[in-house]
Amino acid sequence: MIDIRSDTVTGPTEAMRKAMANAEVGDDVYGDDPTVNRLEKMGAEILDKEASLFVPSGTFGNQLALFTWCPRGTEVILGEECHIIQHEAGAASVIAGVQTRPISAPDGVLRPAALLERLRKAELHYPATSLICLENAHSLGRAVPVEAMDEVRDLAGQWGLPVHLDGARLFNAAAALKREAREIAARADSVMFCLSKGLCAPVGSLLAGKREFVEAARFKRKIMGGGMRQAGILAAAGIIALEDQAGRLREDHGRARFLEKELAAIPGITLSPGDINMVYFSFPPAEDPKIAGGITEFFLKQNIRINGPERGIFRFVTHHWIGDAEIKTILEASQEAFGEQFSKKAAP
Amino acid sequence: MIDIRSDTVTGPTEAMRKAMANAEVGDDVYGDDPTVNRLEKMGAEILDKEASLFVPSGTFGNQLALFTWCPRGTEVILGEECHIIQHEAGAASVIAGVQTRPISAPDGVLRPAALLERLRKAELHYPATSLICLENAHSLGRAVPVEAMDEVRDLAGQWGLPVHLDGARLFNAAAALKREAREIAARADSVMFCLSKGLCAPVGSLLAGKREFVEAARFKRKIMGGGMRQAGILAAAGIIALEDQAGRLREDHGRARFLEKELAAIPGITLSPGDINMVYFSFPPAEDPKIAGGITEFFLKQNIRINGPERGIFRFVTHHWIGDAEIKTILEASQEAFGEQFSKKAAP
Amino acid sequence: MIDIRSDTVTGPTEAMRKAMANAEVGDDVYGDDPTVNRLEKMGAEILDKEASLFVPSGTFGNQLALFTWCPRGTEVILGEECHIIQHEAGAASVIAGVQTRPISAPDGVLRPAALLERLRKAELHYPATSLICLENAHSLGRAVPVEAMDEVRDLAGQWGLPVHLDGARLFNAAAALKREAREIAARADSVMFCLSKGLCAPVGSLLAGKREFVEAARFKRKIMGGGMRQAGILAAAGIIALEDQAGRLREDHGRARFLEKELAAIPGITLSPGDINMVYFSFPPAEDPKIAGGITEFFLKQNIRINGPERGIFRFVTHHWIGDAEIKTILEASQEAFGEQFSKKAAP
Amino acid sequence: MIDIRSDTVTGPTEAMRKAMANAEVGDDVYGDDPTVNRLEKMGAEILDKEASLFVPSGTFGNQLALFTWCPRGTEVILGEECHIIQHEAGAASVIAGVQTRPISAPDGVLRPAALLERLRKAELHYPATSLICLENAHSLGRAVPVEAMDEVRDLAGQWGLPVHLDGARLFNAAAALKREAREIAARADSVMFCLSKGLCAPVGSLLAGKREFVEAARFKRKIMGGGMRQAGILAAAGIIALEDQAGRLREDHGRARFLEKELAAIPGITLSPGDINMVYFSFPPAEDPKIAGGITEFFLKQNIRINGPERGIFRFVTHHWIGDAEIKTILEASQEAFGEQFSKKAAP
Repeated sequence: MIDIRSDTVTGPTEAMRKAMANAEVGDDVYGDDPTVNRLEKMGAEILDKEASLFVPSGTFGNQLALFTWCPRGTEVILGEECHIIQHEAGAASVIAGVQTRPISAPDGVLRPAALLERLRKAELHYPATSLICLENAHSLGRAVPVEAMDEVRDLAGQWGLPVHLDGARLFNAAAALKREAREIAARADSVMFCLSKGLCAPVGSLLAGKREFVEAARFKRKIMGGGMRQAGILAAAGIIALEDQAGRLREDHGRARFLEKELAAIPGITLSPGDINMVYFSFPPAEDPKIAGGITEFFLKQNIRINGPERGIFRFVTHHWIGDAEIKTILEASQEAFGEQFSKKAAP
Repeated sequence: MIDIRSDTVTGPTEAMRKAMANAEVGDDVYGDDPTVNRLEKMGAEILDKEASLFVPSGTFGNQLALFTWCPRGTEVILGEECHIIQHEAGAASVIAGVQTRPISAPDGVLRPAALLERLRKAELHYPATSLICLENAHSLGRAVPVEAMDEVRDLAGQWGLPVHLDGARLFNAAAALKREAREIAARADSVMFCLSKGLCAPVGSLLAGKREFVEAARFKRKIMGGGMRQAGILAAAGIIALEDQAGRLREDHGRARFLEKELAAIPGITLSPGDINMVYFSFPPAEDPKIAGGITEFFLKQNIRINGPERGIFRFVTHHWIGDAEIKTILEASQEAFGEQFSKKAAP
Repeated sequence: MIDIRSDTVTGPTEAMRKAMANAEVGDDVYGDDPTVNRLEKMGAEILDKEASLFVPSGTFGNQLALFTWCPRGTEVILGEECHIIQHEAGAASVIAGVQTRPISAPDGVLRPAALLERLRKAELHYPATSLICLENAHSLGRAVPVEAMDEVRDLAGQWGLPVHLDGARLFNAAAALKREAREIAARADSVMFCLSKGLCAPVGSLLAGKREFVEAARFKRKIMGGGMRQAGILAAAGIIALEDQAGRLREDHGRARFLEKELAAIPGITLSPGDINMVYFSFPPAEDPKIAGGITEFFLKQNIRINGPERGIFRFVTHHWIGDAEIKTILEASQEAFGEQFSKKAAP
Repeated sequence: MIDIRSDTVTGPTEAMRKAMANAEVGDDVYGDDPTVNRLEKMGAEILDKEASLFVPSGTFGNQLALFTWCPRGTEVILGEECHIIQHEAGAASVIAGVQTRPISAPDGVLRPAALLERLRKAELHYPATSLICLENAHSLGRAVPVEAMDEVRDLAGQWGLPVHLDGARLFNAAAALKREAREIAARADSVMFCLSKGLCAPVGSLLAGKREFVEAARFKRKIMGGGMRQAGILAAAGIIALEDQAGRLREDHGRARFLEKELAAIPGITLSPGDINMVYFSFPPAEDPKIAGGITEFFLKQNIRINGPERGIFRFVTHHWIGDAEIKTILEASQEAFGEQFSKKAAP
């Protein structure tokens, strides 16, 4: 089965399975798990931050960052299309209890002028802004240039505000921008990045920042129920993820670009610009739910799992388990589905 | 002293003072205050709703509406420039605990296409939309046509969603649109309107809707600490506000339009479009905080209280206590301040 | 109609009505209401605190105190039978978002040993205690000796914790203990007291404490929707309440003690100890809801409003509008109801 | 190193490591992880519930149960000494946003009379009770008889209330009571039990109940950030935990009883009654923090990790990795520490 719904579907590699089987573990709630400690140290070093904390998911890490930075009732400014607004089940209003002020930013770039209109200090009628969130790579498939991050960081600095980076796909951003992850991380006060997704670890993310921030987050992680016991099992895979996988993401990107180029040749398909391992394209007939369902089913019959489109827009995601052979199969299925079976000419 | 900072500064009329002094009262928490009961019945009737509830402020009424309609963790869609986002101290994230999804709408009109992009049903990653909020008149001085409200109401209906109307200045909207208040209220499931502001009552607002909604709100009002005892004192003034004042708001609007016309003649001033008792104009030199402060002080010396500008934009508000003589004084001061003393030529 | 359900039913006196009719007012959200300012200053002075803030109700004031003192997720230690736990609709979990740790204390006295078992500092598994709440007079009718308050204050001091006093009936406590209100207030860092209830003002309470605390509370009052405009109308009555009524509460107490003595003579009635204007007594047949209903109805026919009993326990409350004549009527009705009509011998 | 601080320190067995290395996995957020699905089905079957859900920790599972059962602002009744109050960092006030009403119950038994005093329906002043929580085995080392649970269940049923069981050590309770786990689980509407702790799985707990409840919890798990991807790795160990470990807990209990008997012979030590794998005893000299520290250090020098005492009370916990040889070493160290080195005679 070829699964291109997301890079979250990536199973662990053999090296990870071996590392998990042999991991030295302890009770991480007591701080005793040597493998977790090693991973947290490693994560901090790679990002050039003082410390990092292991958490069960990317959503957990982002929400924990908000919960740690933001006094309840304050405001968070972030992109309208970002994961925190779009795909975290409204958690910011429950866990941190903050007021979200999204700015439209489909390419992930928060422009200073738009920020300035929303930043505010506490005053009788105003909640204070407490945090600006960036996302890089952005979940619409874009890498945000560090120069654009610099502008946000500078403005935040002038206002005495921290910047949190949702770096669920930080290493994809690094590969796309031809930067070190730490160069991107340097533009934020806290960074969450996932060991799962493109890096293939089965479970877990790290939240990195200054030591004081990470210690505050450790307490709040407990409130959120994220204190896990012998988490070293998972951390062992995370270590391999950082060692083996972070460097190979450009291969996924290359295959995504190739896929884009080939799909663009199919009449009726319009590609969105993409920088990472995601291919977004619109296929208008699929705005009809019946056609959308038909396409998904058609792919499934070819042993390819895709997500149904949202408003006619499909997303295909490449990852460790999608090699050249799989790309070929996907392209053949696409040509048949989009070029023939469900194209407008076929539809009526 | 002439006070044009807001219509919230309006003191009670003599008729109100007399009514308050003679009000028949009881313990409203027990439901025993006959004057509160009379006002709540009257408010419901004027708006053609089943019931209404007396609350201490407009912010209280809006937040109570959110708290009553919206399960915690769900989403509220509303205008970026609306009072709930801009001037209620971030309360939506504290009291109701909801995720705000603002749409830019400086004229108060939420367009269906923008709404559609944000509406969603609960799904594993998505919080459900639970409410759409409108504001009419909008606090940027605009009256929203009922046809624009109809579009929102219809879309909400298709999604099974309630619409709340922040009608802090509902009767101003009615006067500006030449509609009955109930015609505007008919486009919403719940309506908050203020008895203070242009209507001159000292304290209080009403939250109106179906009986079941209002009873749920009564319980939640208690959680918010809004159960007041012999509130009939305030309700007595509220009754006079509805009887005497709702009908005369068009005079305030007339004076605001006159003021606009005259201010527009001053070089350097740019008027924003206005429908109600508010005059918004930009005077770019006042982007400089020092000049802004100078202007405010200058007016104060002429016994005129104005609010300082926000990013160079001033707001003057007419109301019951601003008659033709006061308008004349304000104009003279404006001509001197904006036309001469703080104009660019003077500024060097 | 004689109303002894509560002292919350007290309507304003003539002097209050006159003061309200003539009150000089302004927009209190802007800090411009001279009468509110005068009341807040007066309230602070009487309690020997730096400042005080006008709020719409006692529940509002208590919850605002918790919201201001307590970071979300921390713990508040308080009496199991206190108003905040029993009669504030669970607000502490919504507004402040705190974990309540009640200690059984039917006489209002929190004993140091019981406190010590619950006090804690933040640690990985522990939320920090952030506040201890006292209530004096306690709503079960008791005045808490200042020596008992001292023990709590001292312990709180050792732990660096503030003490909040729910003084809804602070002046009743003062009268019962033969102390000045400020002597009681001195044992707490923040004090809420009501101008309504025994003091007869129609609406409002004050929250007093250090200036910094009161300013923080002012911002949070806005979040809770408690910013009222020309609140000077209500404040004017509050000023009279403090001037005219605080001193006469001992009369209400005298009548309550007299009522107790006479009721105690009725077989089947057992009095609870009482220090203030409340008479609590159990009448076991009234555990049967039908008999309870019958008694309430019987009193109503004699033009006396009483609250139904809770688990067979009745509460009669004396106040400004209950003079000797009313007491006589209440006693006659009680003798007939409890001594004859609904006594056990009559019941079968 | 012998670690008797808790059974949370238990590392995975060889069988678990092997199972984890070979686990078939998928993306559990998509519902695609076959091993998670198998574990969830198995957990439900063992407890005779309709469904169960995998969560990262016991605290997570308990808080998720509250978050799922309890509307915000309602009340939860539970034991003062239970884990939710004592050791979950105050999370109930943050995640579920409920008011806690603890009842003293050091043996874990909530008595109906005490419950009845606290149960209430929503009324203007009252929050509704929404949940009763039991804990079995109780973290103070006691197993709660099912007859005591029946009384709570029956009362809850009369009030239409659900009962949640914190069964972090459910299988210890079953072993102690000589019952099947499902017999205990039958007394509750939702049950959380841990696969870690005595069952030795590295990470994870299950929350079981009716299908509808579990599906609601699945959505709320996402809000809390507990959606993990290839969680089958952990689930694989959980399956072994249920297969291999649940049945052997009585051995841990036997060793704990033996330890109790031997410790009781040391003068100065007073044992608390214990039913499971925990030995609680007081040693008054250890109320002095210096002596407490000395004792902990002394044990550490003997390669035994113990937790420091709380108010002079120690807890030793037996588990899979504590066999007869370790018990012997612990006893020898105890005799030296408590009987000689730090006994009162030695102290001065």
